[in-house]
Amino acid sequence: MQEKLKTDLADVLKPIEEFLRRVDVEIEEKMKTGVPIIDNSGGHLFKRGGKKIRASLIILCSGLKGELPEDVVEIAAAAEIIHAATLIHDDIIDNSEFRRGDVTVSNKWGSKVAVLVGDYLYTRALEVAVSNNRLDLFPIMVEATKNMVKGELYQIEYSKVDVVNKEHYFTIIELKTARFLAACAKLGGVKSGYSVEEAEALFNFGMNLGYAFQIIDDTLDVMDNGQITGKDTGNDFINGKITLPLLHLLENTEGERKMFLIESLREPDEGKWQEVQEMVIASGAVEYCIDISRRYLRDGLGYLSIFPESIYKNVIIDLSRFLLERKY
Amino acid sequence: MQEKLKTDLADVLKPIEEFLRRVDVEIEEKMKTGVPIIDNSGGHLFKRGGKKIRASLIILCSGLKGELPEDVVEIAAAAEIIHAATLIHDDIIDNSEFRRGDVTVSNKWGSKVAVLVGDYLYTRALEVAVSNNRLDLFPIMVEATKNMVKGELYQIEYSKVDVVNKEHYFTIIELKTARFLAACAKLGGVKSGYSVEEAEALFNFGMNLGYAFQIIDDTLDVMDNGQITGKDTGNDFINGKITLPLLHLLENTEGERKMFLIESLREPDEGKWQEVQEMVIASGAVEYCIDISRRYLRDGLGYLSIFPESIYKNVIIDLSRFLLERKY
Repeated sequence: MQEKLKTDLADVLKPIEEFLRRVDVEIEEKMKTGVPIIDNSGGHLFKRGGKKIRASLIILCSGLKGELPEDVVEIAAAAEIIHAATLIHDDIIDNSEFRRGDVTVSNKWGSKVAVLVGDYLYTRALEVAVSNNRLDLFPIMVEATKNMVKGELYQIEYSKVDVVNKEHYFTIIELKTARFLAACAKLGGVKSGYSVEEAEALFNFGMNLGYAFQIIDDTLDVMDNGQITGKDTGNDFINGKITLPLLHLLENTEGERKMFLIESLREPDEGKWQEVQEMVIASGAVEYCIDISRRYLRDGLGYLSIFPESIYKNVIIDLSRFLLERKY
Repeated sequence: MQEKLKTDLADVLKPIEEFLRRVDVEIEEKMKTGVPIIDNSGGHLFKRGGKKIRASLIILCSGLKGELPEDVVEIAAAAEIIHAATLIHDDIIDNSEFRRGDVTVSNKWGSKVAVLVGDYLYTRALEVAVSNNRLDLFPIMVEATKNMVKGELYQIEYSKVDVVNKEHYFTIIELKTARFLAACAKLGGVKSGYSVEEAEALFNFGMNLGYAFQIIDDTLDVMDNGQITGKDTGNDFINGKITLPLLHLLENTEGERKMFLIESLREPDEGKWQEVQEMVIASGAVEYCIDISRRYLRDGLGYLSIFPESIYKNVIIDLSRFLLERKY
């Protein structure tokens, strides 16, 4: 049933290539201030491009009932700027040194500049979103942005080994990831004037895609280096984030090994990762998580059935599958 | 000519006391999430109240042509939440330990939580601003918020002794302070449906008040402890921020003393502050700055002449004078 998977993201996104290029131009233009520290540190993360999943979702969903609106690039750029702001602040919080194959903003300019330039990106993006002469887009975006930040704080409160459970985990990824992707999908629809029901269907699609996407992201972080490409593993463990694969392992371990696991999760360090990783993989957590994410994807794609066949619908399906099958 | 100055802020703001109490309630309600870390760290700064200058300006300006609109408290609360967000992030950046007579959020919860909860306050406030069913208020607020952050970054770029000049200084305080107070004054007018000209007059009033307010703030930071109440001095100097009193001193010092001054500003430390402070005071910088801020205030109040006499107009005048004559 499943078509052959397109393996290169650029290949999948070919039909909106020109729009994505214009998103880059838009970001560059909107970020220019003439103040060197802002232009350099604020523009840093965009030099490597990134996957632009959020911009792609907005653009693709705006084309599900006809032509892509020319000015959809503006709101797509705003979504990418907001995403960059969260990454800059995340990298301060996790003390990350590298991102997108380059040093992080906090590493290069220090955390003071990183705090401020993240704030600048958030507020500039919201200003761009509101300048679109489409004030109906803005509330969707500001709510989604707030929820991302709330999710990060929720994670600090509820991801310790002695309190975390699957319900907390799903709330965290809903707030941190799923609701923003849901908002992007909906924004595309609202931008093109779809009905409330259609916009809601896109929101539900994006939400399910978001769950699937984050579960895969968390699973990639526990897989062994031979299975994935160019990414360190164990970052979540080392940063004290207990994700679905580890929760699955916790539920399926007993006795002394469980004691060891709980102790390791209470005081994680790099030295313990190899042993924990072996336990995770042996527990079948990877397969368990992949299975759950596939189910989310299937449910998500179901919401698209109300839209007619189109090139953009096909790209959305290809993109969704790509995000689940990726190795990075 | 000048009436006797009301010396207590609570006394000045008596006519809008009930509205300010409702702002506190509104902030508490809007900030409640049920997630302890957010409610505790996010609510921390509001426990001590603060001066609520921004909320007061919005409320007062909304009453310049009649009754205060009941729901003005919502946008007033949003402005105070945004102000709190900037303070939380400023305290990370300046490594400040105390604020409003209590420990700072970054001191109590660490800078990771402080970064996130600042972000949460920004985005939550903008969400509150947009939920007001008054989408015309939002663009004013988001632009002003962006400019505050831009001002902080501009200050990092341009406040070093070898580059800073008065033009940079005035750009910094315009972005950091004046434009936000200008936006608050304008928001009050827009909320009450004033004409474009009236809203613009309020913006200009707020801008001038903002310059005056920030110059006084910077001047209080160089005055000797006998002249002011309960505040450390020299914080700007120690944090490498070259403000108007120091710029005045730089312009009016020569020879060896100038060399000493420039060296001290290049590598500031607490030990050098006493000598620098003596130089600042002896230079007449305090009187110079007070004179400039009075001129800004006079120009600012001039913009209010198009509004009829009213209790709220009188409070605005009293409040403005209070802000300039304050000793803290």
